[in-house]
Amino acid sequence: MRPHGAARMLEVAFRYPIKMYVNALGVPPPAIIAEAHSKGILVGALTGSRRHAIKHAQAGVDVLVAAGGEAGGHCGEIATLVLVPEVIDAIRDYPHMDVLAAGGIATGRQMAACMAMGAAGAWCGSVWLTTKEAETIPTVKEKMLKASSANTVRSRSRTGKPTRQLQSAWSDAWASKEAPDPLPMPLQGILTRPVAAKVDKLAEAGHPGAKQLAAYFVGQCVGLMNSEQSVRSVVYDFMTDYAEAVERLSATVAAPAARSETGS
Amino acid sequence: MRPHGAARMLEVAFRYPIKMYVNALGVPPPAIIAEAHSKGILVGALTGSRRHAIKHAQAGVDVLVAAGGEAGGHCGEIATLVLVPEVIDAIRDYPHMDVLAAGGIATGRQMAACMAMGAAGAWCGSVWLTTKEAETIPTVKEKMLKASSANTVRSRSRTGKPTRQLQSAWSDAWASKEAPDPLPMPLQGILTRPVAAKVDKLAEAGHPGAKQLAAYFVGQCVGLMNSEQSVRSVVYDFMTDYAEAVERLSATVAAPAARSETGS
Repeated sequence: MRPHGAARMLEVAFRYPIKMYVNALGVPPPAIIAEAHSKGILVGALTGSRRHAIKHAQAGVDVLVAAGGEAGGHCGEIATLVLVPEVIDAIRDYPHMDVLAAGGIATGRQMAACMAMGAAGAWCGSVWLTTKEAETIPTVKEKMLKASSANTVRSRSRTGKPTRQLQSAWSDAWASKEAPDPLPMPLQGILTRPVAAKVDKLAEAGHPGAKQLAAYFVGQCVGLMNSEQSVRSVVYDFMTDYAEAVERLSATVAAPAARSETGS
Repeated sequence: MRPHGAARMLEVAFRYPIKMYVNALGVPPPAIIAEAHSKGILVGALTGSRRHAIKHAQAGVDVLVAAGGEAGGHCGEIATLVLVPEVIDAIRDYPHMDVLAAGGIATGRQMAACMAMGAAGAWCGSVWLTTKEAETIPTVKEKMLKASSANTVRSRSRTGKPTRQLQSAWSDAWASKEAPDPLPMPLQGILTRPVAAKVDKLAEAGHPGAKQLAAYFVGQCVGLMNSEQSVRSVVYDFMTDYAEAVERLSATVAAPAARSETGS
């Protein structure tokens, strides 16, 4: 994932009719933004703070994915409920830009919450990890379905940068006072990726120690993911839950008017 | 604040026509819950996790204040956007209970977000700290008005338990590798309270070092608190911002119907 390798992958991607390209860490390079725009492809960027948002806006990004500290994988420390309105305010001088809310969103009511604050949509990752279609290994899927939101940690132990993940014997060991500091990115990932692959394989073969070590990136919304569902069913649940949230919020302002009509 | 001292203070409080009593740390003692209920006073409790919520419900608490990790002062690590729906789900067998959302809420749109998720209301603390009426010392108020949401830290350096506060020379010093671990509660508070009072006094007299050390508890929503306002003006802003958020969310489902009417 150095610039040259990334450019070669994007060269292939840009041959297809893709709609959007999103940068996960850092501001997308100017040449890539120009190339995407020349092909009518929107450029998005993950954003963990007001400062990031302004840098992305100045670089010409179209869509910000404001990802709170409750997100799975790489994340900052600012919570989605604060970050979304703060980022929307930060880019008010760039009216063409849209903000998607991310981090901890696994239900339609949470999506509605973010839309009420002005987000243009929601960006979800974790919620797909416990679907029937997911590639998540069964040991980890089972852990996720049982986990509450208190069972994740933010740790540098997987990639060298802070990522939110299931708490496990792995994250516990790296958090202990005796453990060395994780290596900087990308070295920690190079060190741990083959080990994690072996752990997954052994866990699936029933090795008890490997089952304790097995984990994966996931957001705090793992506490809201309590049954294995198809992707289709997750999407339908989002729709009905979103609609109910809209009605619930509307009722908080509509009720007094209704009462006064009845009373007149 | 030992049980005996707390009981004496509550004895005085219960002589007045108060509506609600709220416990900040831990489950309210059974005798106090019984005493409050015998006088028709609601009992509330701050809640940072699903596990806390169930304990409070079993103890007979009426109102849960689900406070996310973005809250000022004592707080857990689960974000408000995840905690509120998780707590509401956890107490679904206790239909008489209400959940107030707390943690990071300084605007009407954030309150609306939480109401959309099923909260019965919002509980705000930080937003009052930069009002004209607040007792916040001017040095700290100015820091809060300038701060973004990235300028808070969660640290044991003030009370011995984790509290979210403005990042300062104080929190930096306690976070350094050379610093001792903070003492357990209540010892750290006993140690630091007189020092913090002296820091505040010297900061107000213009002492440069004291100005760097001066700080206070505040939530991540400090990034949304950018002008000194009266309490009245904050309340009015909440109302209009809340109403706009309701309209914004309603429009996300109403728009297609409106378009189809126009088209017919």
